[in-house]
Amino acid sequence: MAADPPDLHPDVAPLAFLVGTWHGEGLGEYPSIEPFRYGEELTFDHVGDAYLTYAQRSWLLEDGSPLHLERGFLRPGAEGVLELTLAHPLGLTEVSEGALDGPSFALTSIPGGVGRTTTGMPVTSLARRYRVDGRTLVYELDMATETTPMTRHLAAVLRRQP
Amino acid sequence: MAADPPDLHPDVAPLAFLVGTWHGEGLGEYPSIEPFRYGEELTFDHVGDAYLTYAQRSWLLEDGSPLHLERGFLRPGAEGVLELTLAHPLGLTEVSEGALDGPSFALTSIPGGVGRTTTGMPVTSLARRYRVDGRTLVYELDMATETTPMTRHLAAVLRRQP
Repeated sequence: MAADPPDLHPDVAPLAFLVGTWHGEGLGEYPSIEPFRYGEELTFDHVGDAYLTYAQRSWLLEDGSPLHLERGFLRPGAEGVLELTLAHPLGLTEVSEGALDGPSFALTSIPGGVGRTTTGMPVTSLARRYRVDGRTLVYELDMATETTPMTRHLAAVLRRQP
Repeated sequence: MAADPPDLHPDVAPLAFLVGTWHGEGLGEYPSIEPFRYGEELTFDHVGDAYLTYAQRSWLLEDGSPLHLERGFLRPGAEGVLELTLAHPLGLTEVSEGALDGPSFALTSIPGGVGRTTTGMPVTSLARRYRVDGRTLVYELDMATETTPMTRHLAAVLRRQP
């Protein structure tokens, strides 16, 4: 069996402010859809290695039905760079990179960084901005598809869970 | 909050044999490394949508220290095709596809299907074969890198957990 949960790896110490579970609500919008409100939970965790695990789930506020999931890893790359590797159930993968700036970071998919299955959603690029202020995490996500240029898609305000 | 766990989506009914947690041991080998034995747990789960969630973790048998994690989604694509989207903490993403054949399936990364961060591992393609026989799951993984052609890397035998 795996060992007991170890200490945070020193390489991810600058990301310690993220570790935990964040819960709240967001607003989704896009040119092709009606705006919608959603519930969401983000979990950043670790296993003692030089990365954080990242898990996202969201649900419709009306009936709790699942809306989206994301699973992946956030890790330090070259000096000052954060690297995100992510899988989506929409038939997408994402490789995004950006800079850590105190308790904020912005990540943009690298060229060719959005992978798609044959029947995957026609997303071409993604950009994410996260900011933590005390027990609050605010994020925004922009998305471009084959037919829509980079446009705000999601914005949410989450609170750190006890 | 999210609703209680729902029924399996009819689109993933042919994958019901996978749902659960599988635990066992494997052998890793590659031209560039010493062979090693590892412990492993695979979990296939669902949220009522038309995909399964997939989570893998492995650890060194000697001391239980974490070896690798994979997180992603397995979903039906076009007729008879399975699509896998996966994130690895090595700075990799994976889009693989293949066919379901009874309780077996083989998945190969599609052209351009392995995404890499700037400091990601230089993997260029991956191929996976899974076979379930009763309470046993056997899988093999082949890997190619920028310097090594497609070569067996992992083979494991896992047992369904109660």
